Amino acid sequence: MLGSSRSVTAIVAALVGIAGLSYMLVKAVVPAAAVSPDAKAALVEFAPDGKLKQPVGYRTWVFVGEPLTPNDLNGGAANFPEFHDVYIDPESFAYYKKTGEFRDGTVMVKELTSVGSKKASSGNGYFQGEFTGLDTSIKDSKRFKDEPGYWAYFSFGHKYPLKAAVSKNPASACNQCHQENAKTDWVFSQYYPVLRAAAPHSK
Amino acid sequence: MLGSSRSVTAIVAALVGIAGLSYMLVKAVVPAAAVSPDAKAALVEFAPDGKLKQPVGYRTWVFVGEPLTPNDLNGGAANFPEFHDVYIDPESFAYYKKTGEFRDGTVMVKELTSVGSKKASSGNGYFQGEFTGLDTSIKDSKRFKDEPGYWAYFSFGHKYPLKAAVSKNPASACNQCHQENAKTDWVFSQYYPVLRAAAPHSK
Repeated sequence: MLGSSRSVTAIVAALVGIAGLSYMLVKAVVPAAAVSPDAKAALVEFAPDGKLKQPVGYRTWVFVGEPLTPNDLNGGAANFPEFHDVYIDPESFAYYKKTGEFRDGTVMVKELTSVGSKKASSGNGYFQGEFTGLDTSIKDSKRFKDEPGYWAYFSFGHKYPLKAAVSKNPASACNQCHQENAKTDWVFSQYYPVLRAAAPHSK
Repeated sequence: MLGSSRSVTAIVAALVGIAGLSYMLVKAVVPAAAVSPDAKAALVEFAPDGKLKQPVGYRTWVFVGEPLTPNDLNGGAANFPEFHDVYIDPESFAYYKKTGEFRDGTVMVKELTSVGSKKASSGNGYFQGEFTGLDTSIKDSKRFKDEPGYWAYFSFGHKYPLKAAVSKNPASACNQCHQENAKTDWVFSQYYPVLRAAAPHSK
């Protein structure tokens, strides 16, 4: 049916070209979205002076847990007022699910909110009000090679307006407490059933 | 270069076929992964008898908020003991961000955990213990056309082991309270700063 071997070559070349294009198309569309939903776009950024910029997109990261230290149980002024919404970036969560470990590059965000109400139709208790603060921790064996466990801690403030970019806190301010009291690699997994359930071989 | 118009027709057919295959490949790979990370795989399933099976994958959905009704503030036995971790499926969250509305098909999950500790290095308060319960609400104008607001409510139990599949609760058990007390379309947005911040034109 075909006129010559040159024709066949041309057709094969065309087919290969289209197949290649299709492959590139799939490659281009999939990885950023499929492997780690918001992680690529949302992971942290450092300013030229080394300060950490406010993380973005973390509210669609994986929720880890929510300790509550209300002001009314802490002499009117909790160290972390009051609800602590804690998130981990999705890729690091996927890694943790496989290994039970926090990979190099793990980012965790702790967003603080006030207590808005102490009574609702579901009962007496504590109900979230407004956002008040934002803290971030990052494990990075290169950038933070001198921090214990390679974890660095940042606070954008516990009262709005938050700072746009901040230097890491001294190890004595945050790292030391995490090192001494957190159960799993500087992370308070003892208060995070989501992490315990996700770890391999957990109950 | 080509021998006949039949050859050209055959080649065009082949190219169109490959292009079509490529398109199908892209379609097959992308939507489940890119548009809504875990939603396609994780959205709810009904048993043949109409009961709702336990939702899966919701711990990587979008965290909405966490009311707390501890037993110790509710006569030793809260109606919803004790932390309520509330999630919304990612596609419905994306729709809500655009419109401020809960789309038909919205699924929300409320996972209950016990209070594990009332004192930690961060202060006095409430810290999560273990998973204890699981509730789900679904807005569906076809399946639940007779429910007020089209919202149906399911409880898999507030004590482990949970039930594998359950019928919806009568409207008087859950829907009525949501209808009367929740601020936004049967959802308690007054306690969910994440939702308020995500809605269009919100502060």
